[in-house]
Amino acid sequence: MDILKDILRKNDTKILLVVLDGLGGLPHPEHGMKSELEVAHKPNLDDLARRAATGMTIPVDYGVTPGSGPAHLALFGYDPLEHIIGRGVLEALGIGFHMGKNDVAARGNFATLRDGVVVDRRAGRIPTTESSKIVSKLAEKIKKIEDVEVILRPGKEHRFVVIFRGPGLDDKVSDTDPEKVGVPPLKAHPTAETEGAKKLARIVNEFVRQALEIISDEPKANGILLRGFAKVPDITPFPEKFQLKSVAIAAYPMYKGLTRLVGMDTPDVGETFEDEIKALENLWNDYEFFYLHFKDTDKAGEDGDFKKKVDRIEYFDKFVPTILSLKPDVLVITGDHSTPSLIGGHSWHPNPTILYSRFSGLDDVDVFTEKACSRGYLGIFFAKHLMKLVLANAQRFTKFGA
Amino acid sequence: MDILKDILRKNDTKILLVVLDGLGGLPHPEHGMKSELEVAHKPNLDDLARRAATGMTIPVDYGVTPGSGPAHLALFGYDPLEHIIGRGVLEALGIGFHMGKNDVAARGNFATLRDGVVVDRRAGRIPTTESSKIVSKLAEKIKKIEDVEVILRPGKEHRFVVIFRGPGLDDKVSDTDPEKVGVPPLKAHPTAETEGAKKLARIVNEFVRQALEIISDEPKANGILLRGFAKVPDITPFPEKFQLKSVAIAAYPMYKGLTRLVGMDTPDVGETFEDEIKALENLWNDYEFFYLHFKDTDKAGEDGDFKKKVDRIEYFDKFVPTILSLKPDVLVITGDHSTPSLIGGHSWHPNPTILYSRFSGLDDVDVFTEKACSRGYLGIFFAKHLMKLVLANAQRFTKFGA
Repeated sequence: MDILKDILRKNDTKILLVVLDGLGGLPHPEHGMKSELEVAHKPNLDDLARRAATGMTIPVDYGVTPGSGPAHLALFGYDPLEHIIGRGVLEALGIGFHMGKNDVAARGNFATLRDGVVVDRRAGRIPTTESSKIVSKLAEKIKKIEDVEVILRPGKEHRFVVIFRGPGLDDKVSDTDPEKVGVPPLKAHPTAETEGAKKLARIVNEFVRQALEIISDEPKANGILLRGFAKVPDITPFPEKFQLKSVAIAAYPMYKGLTRLVGMDTPDVGETFEDEIKALENLWNDYEFFYLHFKDTDKAGEDGDFKKKVDRIEYFDKFVPTILSLKPDVLVITGDHSTPSLIGGHSWHPNPTILYSRFSGLDDVDVFTEKACSRGYLGIFFAKHLMKLVLANAQRFTKFGA
Repeated sequence: MDILKDILRKNDTKILLVVLDGLGGLPHPEHGMKSELEVAHKPNLDDLARRAATGMTIPVDYGVTPGSGPAHLALFGYDPLEHIIGRGVLEALGIGFHMGKNDVAARGNFATLRDGVVVDRRAGRIPTTESSKIVSKLAEKIKKIEDVEVILRPGKEHRFVVIFRGPGLDDKVSDTDPEKVGVPPLKAHPTAETEGAKKLARIVNEFVRQALEIISDEPKANGILLRGFAKVPDITPFPEKFQLKSVAIAAYPMYKGLTRLVGMDTPDVGETFEDEIKALENLWNDYEFFYLHFKDTDKAGEDGDFKKKVDRIEYFDKFVPTILSLKPDVLVITGDHSTPSLIGGHSWHPNPTILYSRFSGLDDVDVFTEKACSRGYLGIFFAKHLMKLVLANAQRFTKFGA
């Protein structure tokens, strides 16, 4: 990727990357062995596929099912096996917390302890209202340990996020969550021989000690389990890496967080996809690169709801003319990973992809489906390469070598 | 590949990898410019292709024709360019010799010397019965050199295998075979600056000196040439790497040896493919991963016998219903390398591949041929990635990253 630096050039093209979350699906035995994309009535997407180059992108590796973090990093042109986003960071992103370079985040669970032993790792999934109060109580009493600020934020039900903010912390520290019941919570241990890891482990253990005293009277949430200690990864910001003034248009905190992590602007754009489309129109003159996120396809897939996923694809399809009316020089429509209703969760299957530009080339694909895109002009390739094709189509690369 | 360790999980799925040796072919000008797979009547394989995902696997690299060793290592999920199986080892595997970690094997040729100069590198291809007697004579008289045991085994015609078994041997030793006539055999030299290589070279040269005395009266086989000194490669065993209780069902010694090398169980299963199928049925409850080897396609291809290869494909096809009746959760039907009758030997062409599981996805391919599979849903990819797809289809991978 070092050659990028040498061949990048600026121009006034506009690039739009539309990610339909969890787009790809699988043939379903209860739906005529057709996939969601095969069943959906989506004349605009099909027409676009007919007028564009198509292909499939592999998110991380053959057979590897990615979380949202690695799947998006790949779409943004980073090697997802090189840049790991820890669980703590993703939890923090998910609740909209802005992490700094000195922060280590961890995911917390309230748990039920009896005689010091974990009997319920989720404290009976106590309601969010209740756990929020406990988080407030903890936050009020634990503000600092040594020179490290402790920041607590509630999540859903038994979940919360804790951020340790201070100089010289290293996130190479083991979980305190034993990931099973019948045993006591673990002590945090440094997993690297650094002063920073030793310091963080010491502070984590002291935090847990103080917290347990404060919540000892709670009937269910009288324990806490921490896992996924992580700093924000050290990543060259996307706008710098690709010389693109970039904005993310995403309603969900997790995706705003992910894009903030790679240095995109992340304005508040409202709650719905219609809000997002309005924001896209309003921001069109101000940026060169636009990431537009559509969440509903993933949610329906996660719920194993084939018909709902079909419906959400058809819903998205109606916005395609509006998107095209902005006249992006390069338009990509793809997924971050597949979420087949048949599986009811993320999967490893590649993402059907449309690349539409004056220079994209064409193929015989005239319908936007997994089957069709798998024999498209672009072939099947790793998602981390997509941004290079995008930049080439935007004529933002000069010649390599003489 | 390190992420494999982190995302592997166990379940009770069963995986069957069927390798039709040398499966792929080429359009033949004397057979209507059709390939063997295109001519063969194989309704069961075609039906399976219709109900499965298809693609092509590249054994080692674009344009690279592999031997059986690297081709199989790739199928088993190892990088065949990283793990090299030396010629000596392959010869030992081929005659069914069980090599240990302290063994160095070499391939031997009897040769004809005149005045110390090689005049025939194969000793007139003396009959196996004759060469076996000479091997026995050598084995009787040379049992040990220094602290290294010398083990001799006859091969076909002028070929034999010698194993040097002892502590601290390094296989980095040059061949004594000059690979041409009119020159004397070479001395073995260490090619690495290690004590083990120096020791092996010394022992090899002493072995040759003693052997030449013993066979000096032979009319043809009065010389020996050694090449391909090799230890068994240091490979993470397949059952450990993929957390699969694994068995190889193969009649031929070479393939039993290759699979034993990667740690699969290799029971004796008889001589014929029908014996293999019976063994598959009998062992079905005892393992999680099954490698099933069909040799005939390669043999016919090697003989340049187009019709015979067609016949062998049709023969295999009849067993597909039996294989399916075992209800494997994941079934792969592929080749290790191509052996087109047109070439009469191994070739670099990718292997037509069927991947059949509940989650494999589908394509428009409804016939099992090279042409059809090259536009299948799986695309064209390196064989070393196949096992990852297999494990994903068996749902033996958890999510990577949050």
